Amino acid sequence: MDETRQLAEYLVTSRAEDVPSDVRREARRSILNYLGCALGGSREPAVDAAIQALGPYSGPATAAVLGRRERLDPLHASLMNGISSHVHDYDDTTPGNYIHPSSPVASALFAYASQSEVTGRDFVHAFVLGFEAECRVGNAVFPAHYDAGWHITGTAGVFGAAAAIGRLRGLPAPRMVWALGLAATQAAGLREMFGSMAKSFHPGRAAQNGYAAALLAESGFTAGEHAIEAPRGFAAVQAARYDVSRVTRGLGVDYDLRVNAYKPFPCGIVNHPAIDGCIQLHDAHGLTGDRIRQVRLGVAPLVKDLCNKQRITRGLEGKFSVYHGAAVGLARGRAGLDEYTDAAVADPEIRRIREGAVADADAALTEDQARITVELTDGTVLEKFVEQSLGNLRKPMSDGQLEEKFRRQAVRALPEAQVEDAIALCWRIDTLADVGELVRASVPEAERAETVG
Amino acid sequence: MDETRQLAEYLVTSRAEDVPSDVRREARRSILNYLGCALGGSREPAVDAAIQALGPYSGPATAAVLGRRERLDPLHASLMNGISSHVHDYDDTTPGNYIHPSSPVASALFAYASQSEVTGRDFVHAFVLGFEAECRVGNAVFPAHYDAGWHITGTAGVFGAAAAIGRLRGLPAPRMVWALGLAATQAAGLREMFGSMAKSFHPGRAAQNGYAAALLAESGFTAGEHAIEAPRGFAAVQAARYDVSRVTRGLGVDYDLRVNAYKPFPCGIVNHPAIDGCIQLHDAHGLTGDRIRQVRLGVAPLVKDLCNKQRITRGLEGKFSVYHGAAVGLARGRAGLDEYTDAAVADPEIRRIREGAVADADAALTEDQARITVELTDGTVLEKFVEQSLGNLRKPMSDGQLEEKFRRQAVRALPEAQVEDAIALCWRIDTLADVGELVRASVPEAERAETVG
Repeated sequence: MDETRQLAEYLVTSRAEDVPSDVRREARRSILNYLGCALGGSREPAVDAAIQALGPYSGPATAAVLGRRERLDPLHASLMNGISSHVHDYDDTTPGNYIHPSSPVASALFAYASQSEVTGRDFVHAFVLGFEAECRVGNAVFPAHYDAGWHITGTAGVFGAAAAIGRLRGLPAPRMVWALGLAATQAAGLREMFGSMAKSFHPGRAAQNGYAAALLAESGFTAGEHAIEAPRGFAAVQAARYDVSRVTRGLGVDYDLRVNAYKPFPCGIVNHPAIDGCIQLHDAHGLTGDRIRQVRLGVAPLVKDLCNKQRITRGLEGKFSVYHGAAVGLARGRAGLDEYTDAAVADPEIRRIREGAVADADAALTEDQARITVELTDGTVLEKFVEQSLGNLRKPMSDGQLEEKFRRQAVRALPEAQVEDAIALCWRIDTLADVGELVRASVPEAERAETVG
Repeated sequence: MDETRQLAEYLVTSRAEDVPSDVRREARRSILNYLGCALGGSREPAVDAAIQALGPYSGPATAAVLGRRERLDPLHASLMNGISSHVHDYDDTTPGNYIHPSSPVASALFAYASQSEVTGRDFVHAFVLGFEAECRVGNAVFPAHYDAGWHITGTAGVFGAAAAIGRLRGLPAPRMVWALGLAATQAAGLREMFGSMAKSFHPGRAAQNGYAAALLAESGFTAGEHAIEAPRGFAAVQAARYDVSRVTRGLGVDYDLRVNAYKPFPCGIVNHPAIDGCIQLHDAHGLTGDRIRQVRLGVAPLVKDLCNKQRITRGLEGKFSVYHGAAVGLARGRAGLDEYTDAAVADPEIRRIREGAVADADAALTEDQARITVELTDGTVLEKFVEQSLGNLRKPMSDGQLEEKFRRQAVRALPEAQVEDAIALCWRIDTLADVGELVRASVPEAERAETVG
């Protein structure tokens, strides 16, 4: 029973060249997806409120906050990046443990890279290590831990941030053990917070607290040596059933990055098959809202349980309306952040299609499937069966789709030209001499000039 | 099921004059005891390491760190105060829930008072409210929560800090609900950390995170509305059995401050009866080490389980040696921090007495009792039976004993004259126009002058 030490040994001895190329490629995709989400969420009220509350307590403002003009110390920047990147619930998910894994790790790493030179190679390596540490800790306690009410993105996430920052700070193994211990003893986040700003606070605080754990351990602040596996350690205390062997089994061989998934649409994932199919119909037939008379959906029964809202007025309600998702998919050919605003929900054409739609629960359909029938105003009937929904592990978003998702989010924070720079830099992040270059491309122009100059 | 809101309503509507005078008196004793512990621990390596690690990330240094020259922002000062005050495990305990209750609350309040004017009346009132909020949340989940491996001082403590700071910041009830929610979702701390610096990190982080929770809630950062009682809230997630009615039952009538206990000796509480009796023998007979030939102890069986170390070399081991406690009690007439140093353990006279002592487990003795037999070099045999150990609820430390405990700790951080000032200010804290006066008496002279000037 020595999993914490074994994990720490791995984290400090792993070499960048040991990471297989397919894993490095998925890391780039995860970083691109993460950064887009952070930019897309960076102007939300949750971030404004957090900066207003805690900005006056920030240390020397050496770090950038992604998508914002304000600068903060890197611990507070980690927090803000975490809130931004999760606030739309649009970031990545590892379906095997329900963690949103990139946010806690990358939020800390981007804060770090904004104030310390770090090569792209080391940055990506630290990201991979943090991602794996966090998922392995999560796998050890899933599903009992999540089922009990823990928001696993917060609880497991703090390990990932500690591992990633601890690695970049060059901790020796005994101090990496302490960093993991100080992470474990800060692992927190309740699912009761879902539906409030505090949900996005979880990956933010995980990033900030994991970062602090690494700094404390580096300075010789000691912690328990068996934080994960001890009888009063993380797994036993925070899960009714657990398997700590999952922390170390296949270390350096199996990578959870290979099973990371990206959301194409910022809404409940059970709506995704219907939206996916509706967008395909839009694209295939050049549909516009005025050509659509009536929509009929066949969906898995769970969709009717969770997302049956039809008479709605607010953007947030749209996230729980399969009818709204279908309407924007058919009429606009997309379902991004702009389709889940109050204005989009109030759009008369969208509203007409949404309120006229019918959804039938069909137990023969999986949660990855949907059947769509659309009657057009000219009497034509279009049909579409979705076998696998875009974004799931069997039908992952393409690089181009991830870029498009990035663009639509990033323009909320950055000028368009800069958005393209940031995308290009993400794809070649491994080769950057200093990831600070990508950070500078990820803050508004005025700030960027100030930082560069 | 509305306990969180009811608690919040109470916290924002309670008036200082509603707090009974015996509770206010116990609050002063708790604050005196807390402050002495913070001063006594302020120069420990754990505090040095934490300041070294996190000091560079501190915001504007508007707040004092008790017993230190460094100044930090009030959030980081809260953390350091929490570490200092708990690092010797010498702070108070409410025996009914095993919480060390003053540290999380007072650590935040002293940081607050060092940078914002606050009357003694409001300070004490906020302290009482924070103490009660924390204990009530703890009572609701004790003992299952503690037994599972949670360090309840960290998990319940964050509620206390949020309540106290939220009250001083004047949060309205709906925002106090969020502050409690943001506290709940940061509740953390594993017993696996016992024996490392991370144990004292728990009340420190609780103070810091509770303080931040209040600031965030004040700025409109939202949280779940039923953080304590919801199916995925604090109690259900963090305790196998719980009774949330204990959060609100007797609010404003029953006070946990009335059952707060102060440790006379900085070591395992099961050693206390033997030490107490030995000191009584020392005082009654003017004993010195050279007059003691042999010691025989009758103790509760648990003492032999937990504190049977006899051949020891380090001060820390002394905390788990009932023989060492008896030896210093008899030879020195005290068992304070100076008796638990490596030097005290190595003292030849103490060592001779310690290593020659015998302890017999006696199931007829309670954990508050001990029987001591001492044979002197002149053949005299002294006997002492301790019925109730000093510091327990039936035999609380007197005000004078608390003062003496304060003095012996505070001289580690402050000049002697200043120590007396601080004691006098603690006793009349209710009447202070600004608790900043007490804070200035609780940092070293040079710093004090700088702050005043």
